[in-house]
Amino acid sequence: MEIKIFCPATIANLNCGFDIMGLCLENIGDEMIFRKSVTKGVQITKITGANLPYEVTKNVAGVAALALLNTVENNFGIEIEIHKKIRAGSGIGSSSASAAGAVFGVNELLGKPLSRNQLVDFAMKGEAIASGSEHADNVAPCLLGGFTLVRGYNPLDVIKIASPSELYAVVLHPHIEVKTADARAVLEPTVPFKNAITQTGNLGGLIAGLFTNDYELIGRSLNDVLVEPFRKQLIPYFDDVKIAAIQSGALGAGISGAGPSIFALCKGENLAKEVAKAMQNSYSRTNIPFDFYISKVNEQGIKVI
Amino acid sequence: MEIKIFCPATIANLNCGFDIMGLCLENIGDEMIFRKSVTKGVQITKITGANLPYEVTKNVAGVAALALLNTVENNFGIEIEIHKKIRAGSGIGSSSASAAGAVFGVNELLGKPLSRNQLVDFAMKGEAIASGSEHADNVAPCLLGGFTLVRGYNPLDVIKIASPSELYAVVLHPHIEVKTADARAVLEPTVPFKNAITQTGNLGGLIAGLFTNDYELIGRSLNDVLVEPFRKQLIPYFDDVKIAAIQSGALGAGISGAGPSIFALCKGENLAKEVAKAMQNSYSRTNIPFDFYISKVNEQGIKVI
Repeated sequence: MEIKIFCPATIANLNCGFDIMGLCLENIGDEMIFRKSVTKGVQITKITGANLPYEVTKNVAGVAALALLNTVENNFGIEIEIHKKIRAGSGIGSSSASAAGAVFGVNELLGKPLSRNQLVDFAMKGEAIASGSEHADNVAPCLLGGFTLVRGYNPLDVIKIASPSELYAVVLHPHIEVKTADARAVLEPTVPFKNAITQTGNLGGLIAGLFTNDYELIGRSLNDVLVEPFRKQLIPYFDDVKIAAIQSGALGAGISGAGPSIFALCKGENLAKEVAKAMQNSYSRTNIPFDFYISKVNEQGIKVI
Repeated sequence: MEIKIFCPATIANLNCGFDIMGLCLENIGDEMIFRKSVTKGVQITKITGANLPYEVTKNVAGVAALALLNTVENNFGIEIEIHKKIRAGSGIGSSSASAAGAVFGVNELLGKPLSRNQLVDFAMKGEAIASGSEHADNVAPCLLGGFTLVRGYNPLDVIKIASPSELYAVVLHPHIEVKTADARAVLEPTVPFKNAITQTGNLGGLIAGLFTNDYELIGRSLNDVLVEPFRKQLIPYFDDVKIAAIQSGALGAGISGAGPSIFALCKGENLAKEVAKAMQNSYSRTNIPFDFYISKVNEQGIKVI
């Protein structure tokens, strides 16, 4: 028995939703293949597209797969092929796609004992070896699709948020490295009380805008007063790209995950193409190579193909 | 021409929604009467139920009424009677009811040139002389009804949040004074970054729970890690009442506004009555007199009676 799955890229944080919000992209993602084997345990048999360890306990997908396989009784093992399309360190959930893909694939071969929501917890285990801490803001949208909110971690509480149908994301990925340690180091351990309140107001506006299909409210809410002011200095020409996106009609723009990717949200595909063009034009003036993507919000999430 | 209106009490903050969320109560509120007069400007002709200044520029309702009357062209003046039922300093929006009532009444006599949402800004002007700063978290739910979110202030951005139909509030008002200055002094000017993120997660959960009629999610989200830990020390036996409310089935409980009132949210009227009994029993052991109220969420807000 063999299945092949598509593991989509994701945008975490979404400005006011730092560490708690994420959304799932449609046409950017890894592929993974899962096969039952007589040898018990997990084996990684093939990796393309990235230089990753085959040793299961050092591989994000391997750790996540084992976390799930070890908790469900079964009489077979699983072989995994990983075909990376999402670049590591791009800020659009590359390691999360592997972790989410691993638990999704293993769950399929086990006969789906767990729901997608229950799988988030296991995917976090894999994600932890990539990021150093357990986070769900990328694995949740990868598994559930659409927009997701991580309300809290004790216990893990993940909620899918309905969203309007014409929402598109544009992602510009500058080919530079933002080290996770640096991305963390710029954050202050304390923040002004009034900024914390401003952030809650915007997060409330974002959630309300998503539920009521109020694109303008979504746009007004896409502000981050806690993180972006510090992290943007790690992404050269961030402000230029953001201004270009908004001036060309984007609802809002910001840092995708820990960066360096820059995202914009737009109403409708045509406008998204305009915004992508403006962001590209803006970044073409730098000497930094980049990729870009335009994607509708992916309501389905990870899937068998 | 004369109209009489009902100006409901409100619960601001709702734990995770400090300074931004509020809800409108149904059967607790002031009454106000407005009459056109040939004398231009605003006159306060009668006040019952509280010892408040008749001087318009020192009276919350007077200031709010003037703020609106002065911006709309008209050829008459307005007389106001204020019949206070909500005790000053109770933490359930007493001054806000006066401010919201004033602008609502004046707007009615002017022929409704402004929407309820537009009136929030003018009511804030009156509220400012009571609280020392312009806040909308009580005047917004008083004017709009239901639950409201103040996304931000520059410019003022108030959003009504849909909510499930069986939501009831219980309010216990201990007869003690919490000075606004004290309530502010206990707040730290900075807060831990991770607490700010926890607060945004809970606020997101509250808004999502309200939109999707998910009572349990509303309950899980009713946590305040930024303010309650400090302010509760100003309200004797707060923890006891909160525990009594939750143990008897409340979804959540916390400080109403700046206190001293303690609120609980419940699913259904019968449960609300049980919770109210448990909260009363708990507080009866103290020597502090108190009032209590049980109210459905008031979807309509302020109204002509």
